[in-house]
Amino acid sequence: MELYNRDARRAALWEKHQPRLEEARSAWHRRTYWFAYPEDPRAYPEAWASQGESDFKAQLNRPFDRLRQPGRRWVLSDEVSPYTQQSLGLSYPQSDVGEWIETAREALSVWRWVPWTERLGLLMESVERFSRRFFEVAHATMHTTGQAWMMAFQASGPHAADRAVEALAVAYEELSHIPYHVRWQKDLGKVQAVVEKYFTPQPEGLSLHIGVSTFPVWNVLPGLYASLAVGSSVLLKPHPRAIYPIAVVVSILQELFEEYGLPPTIVQLTVDTFREPVTKALAEHPWIRLIDYTGGNEFGRYLESLPGKITFLEKAGVNGVLLESVEDLEAVAKNLAFSASLYSGQMCTAPQNVYVPRSGVKTPQGTLSYEEVRSALTRAIEELAGHPKAAPAILGALQNDQVAERIQRLAAQAIVHRSPASYTHPQYTQARTLTPVVAEAPAPDAAWAQEEHFGPRLVVVPVQDAQEGLERLYQLARQKGMLSCAVYTIDPAFKRHAARLLSEAAVPVSFNFRGQVFINQSVAFSDFHGTGGNPASNASFTDSAFVVKRFRWVGLRDCLAG
Amino acid sequence: MELYNRDARRAALWEKHQPRLEEARSAWHRRTYWFAYPEDPRAYPEAWASQGESDFKAQLNRPFDRLRQPGRRWVLSDEVSPYTQQSLGLSYPQSDVGEWIETAREALSVWRWVPWTERLGLLMESVERFSRRFFEVAHATMHTTGQAWMMAFQASGPHAADRAVEALAVAYEELSHIPYHVRWQKDLGKVQAVVEKYFTPQPEGLSLHIGVSTFPVWNVLPGLYASLAVGSSVLLKPHPRAIYPIAVVVSILQELFEEYGLPPTIVQLTVDTFREPVTKALAEHPWIRLIDYTGGNEFGRYLESLPGKITFLEKAGVNGVLLESVEDLEAVAKNLAFSASLYSGQMCTAPQNVYVPRSGVKTPQGTLSYEEVRSALTRAIEELAGHPKAAPAILGALQNDQVAERIQRLAAQAIVHRSPASYTHPQYTQARTLTPVVAEAPAPDAAWAQEEHFGPRLVVVPVQDAQEGLERLYQLARQKGMLSCAVYTIDPAFKRHAARLLSEAAVPVSFNFRGQVFINQSVAFSDFHGTGGNPASNASFTDSAFVVKRFRWVGLRDCLAG
Repeated sequence: MELYNRDARRAALWEKHQPRLEEARSAWHRRTYWFAYPEDPRAYPEAWASQGESDFKAQLNRPFDRLRQPGRRWVLSDEVSPYTQQSLGLSYPQSDVGEWIETAREALSVWRWVPWTERLGLLMESVERFSRRFFEVAHATMHTTGQAWMMAFQASGPHAADRAVEALAVAYEELSHIPYHVRWQKDLGKVQAVVEKYFTPQPEGLSLHIGVSTFPVWNVLPGLYASLAVGSSVLLKPHPRAIYPIAVVVSILQELFEEYGLPPTIVQLTVDTFREPVTKALAEHPWIRLIDYTGGNEFGRYLESLPGKITFLEKAGVNGVLLESVEDLEAVAKNLAFSASLYSGQMCTAPQNVYVPRSGVKTPQGTLSYEEVRSALTRAIEELAGHPKAAPAILGALQNDQVAERIQRLAAQAIVHRSPASYTHPQYTQARTLTPVVAEAPAPDAAWAQEEHFGPRLVVVPVQDAQEGLERLYQLARQKGMLSCAVYTIDPAFKRHAARLLSEAAVPVSFNFRGQVFINQSVAFSDFHGTGGNPASNASFTDSAFVVKRFRWVGLRDCLAG
Repeated sequence: MELYNRDARRAALWEKHQPRLEEARSAWHRRTYWFAYPEDPRAYPEAWASQGESDFKAQLNRPFDRLRQPGRRWVLSDEVSPYTQQSLGLSYPQSDVGEWIETAREALSVWRWVPWTERLGLLMESVERFSRRFFEVAHATMHTTGQAWMMAFQASGPHAADRAVEALAVAYEELSHIPYHVRWQKDLGKVQAVVEKYFTPQPEGLSLHIGVSTFPVWNVLPGLYASLAVGSSVLLKPHPRAIYPIAVVVSILQELFEEYGLPPTIVQLTVDTFREPVTKALAEHPWIRLIDYTGGNEFGRYLESLPGKITFLEKAGVNGVLLESVEDLEAVAKNLAFSASLYSGQMCTAPQNVYVPRSGVKTPQGTLSYEEVRSALTRAIEELAGHPKAAPAILGALQNDQVAERIQRLAAQAIVHRSPASYTHPQYTQARTLTPVVAEAPAPDAAWAQEEHFGPRLVVVPVQDAQEGLERLYQLARQKGMLSCAVYTIDPAFKRHAARLLSEAAVPVSFNFRGQVFINQSVAFSDFHGTGGNPASNASFTDSAFVVKRFRWVGLRDCLAG
């Protein structure tokens, strides 16, 4: 019995991409350094770079007319460049919630019966086509998120593409576990039972993917590709301030689906504005079964509370650092200053609370006092923020005004060792910039030190000794969650103790990061992003759970003899 | 860095059992006929059979003193034999909820740091030791559930053990995906970054497993072994009327853990009584994170509504059968009569609603009328129920009085073609027995035909034609859920149409089951039990999701050079 609608052209795409996906799957298992797309812009043809820039410029102040989905009206988006503080002037087609859902259901009825091999072939092809658009998407990312150029290129380009391929690799692993067809035979004595069995992975239902303004591509692609891989059709609801970068990805997918005889609406862009949001109406719709989301805690808790939904949430945590002992304090301070400054601290993995023992931090040369450590951290931030080339390249710009307001509020509550202040961007004089505050908590249980202050900040938190610091980290991890956590120690016994305790809180600890290795970075095919096991997230890029929760094996049995 | 507490004796157990588990894992992938433990009692030493019987007799009317866990008091259980209607006279040690949880947390802190290889070795060993107790557990099952002897032996013995090994095989698959330790290196130009990475699977937390009175071992073992495999410690809350069979399994595990230097309380039996239930207090306890449950819908919905829990629920559905066309009606009627009668219909996979077209059922010899089909079904039930040897061997006894009351209520609402009545058991004159009712619904939308009537019953439901029947099946599956579903058709186009539609409702369809192949049976290593995708269950024995939702990968990074 043939349950699927098979197609030779799509099957050929699977033939084309299977070897590469096999490689990716091995890399996911092996977890040593591997990538699908190089992170250095110079690795790509020069023509792609110039084409990307001109495509970006040509798109500004125009309707985004590359989508292949029904639209009832064009809406002007809320996208404003954090560098120029000018509207991008883009408009997108918009429908009504009921129509989007109905269109997605129709597409689902086709997509679920495309064999998963063909689906993976198409999706790998889409990533390859996306790679030719990395430069346009980088410009679009820079001018929606405020990221500096290099980060915009890497995060929305090769790093996001790698996470997409990783999600496909895990889907390949899991979908290939069970065969489509098998003949089962059992000797029943007088007779031989013969049963033909068919196993099809069935998607849980329609998927809604809710984007975030700071990483509109990187945080969306893993869930998007995982849902598509298992046969779900997808509504992609970008953040109103960061639509353009992901709209390019959607248009590539839609074009490809159409080219291969499928409804382009297997993925739809569901754009809204601040004035007329649609996210809740989509999320609450009974046909929406899977929800992927990156963003604040309040909305995350609302999504979690919706009955009958399967959620993949990355919310906020309070990332912590503990200094027990160090080899070289200056190197550590420099490393942490970079991590706190990168994209003005607007990363879910940026460090916030640095627990420093009042009893001091041990080094091979003797113990450094609490005050010496605090000064070193302040100095390192100061140096970076004051560097005319480093500041724009590392800090970039603030995504929105609320970030600056939040950091000013933090400064008003804390003991301030370095005030937050703008820097002047050499190229964009109107850029919305802010260098980090270095704040100090009076005591580790200060209420505001238990909350995330998303933005450029480092909070020094005094503890009696390293053991208290470790317990504070553990409690913070269990109660508030963390997406990153750093411990500095040159004592092997303390390291093992910390490793075990923090693992029990499902926190991914980074020990002794220094030089050019930063805790903000989580690398596809090697690091899991989020564990899913502490309050900061209930999902992980990309473990098996991230894929298998999206579909169900359905077995059919056809009795030929009994 | 060594995070685990390793032990050479436990590692030797892994060496011993790994080849067999490897075989089991291949079988799970292959899905052809395979078993770990033979289902024929004669495959086991005669001495085990007689020992089992005498152990059972010696245990009656005595405290169950084989557990190695703290107890504050002995409680007399509510267990009553459905065959003799006498109390088994067993008592069990009981603690308080707070103490059970505290003990489980202590055990968790040890068990999670036993390497998963050692855990799997221990758990495979425990199944092997359990196999020597199959006969005692079979007697205990018969006299708590009311199952006939052969079913009691198979369901609580080899079939349950196979499902345990299956859960361990899936855990082996998933836990071996990611290495414990890897050295990650990346050329950063001037320097070489070197990061040691450690990945440990961390259990989501403590597990609670809530047993059911009809299958106290079979329905519990998959979740129990899956939770233990990922390093969770476990509270096992049996149904108050069916404790003894699973208590034997717990005692085997506890003895083994102690023998290998571990806390026996990694698994605890948390016994309660009807007068003083503890299930809700356990389920609501904040330290309980995972809940496995088999039972009614109302309690299932309550468990699902508890915030912050990960649930694996098998609730009730309304299993449906559709007769479109048949090769041989008598053979089909006989097969369905057996499925409806087996264990007096007290199986979650027993058929209930049989949709029969008023336009008749096609056969190669012509069309049979609706009335002919209904009569054939009634006759087949009558023959089986009236057969002096078949009735006791197939029907067994009713687990409790509510089953009979429920079937009498059903009969009062329906058009009755065969009244439910007791049969006399040749060996146990006091046995609580009931043969199936054959009921008819006036129309497919009769409210009572949308509800499950757990017990010996077959409900004939008239539909205009096969297409309406298929739509009714689909709607019933989506709204009420099904754990089994049968379609009879000799038309290949109708078969494919039905296969695709019902797959979309995540219902496991069985086509044309006849002879000795019954829809009630789901076979480990080949059939998934439940899809988890329709309202009857949110979990499946045993797919990847059944295991991976219980743990989280936590990655540690130790920077050696940057």
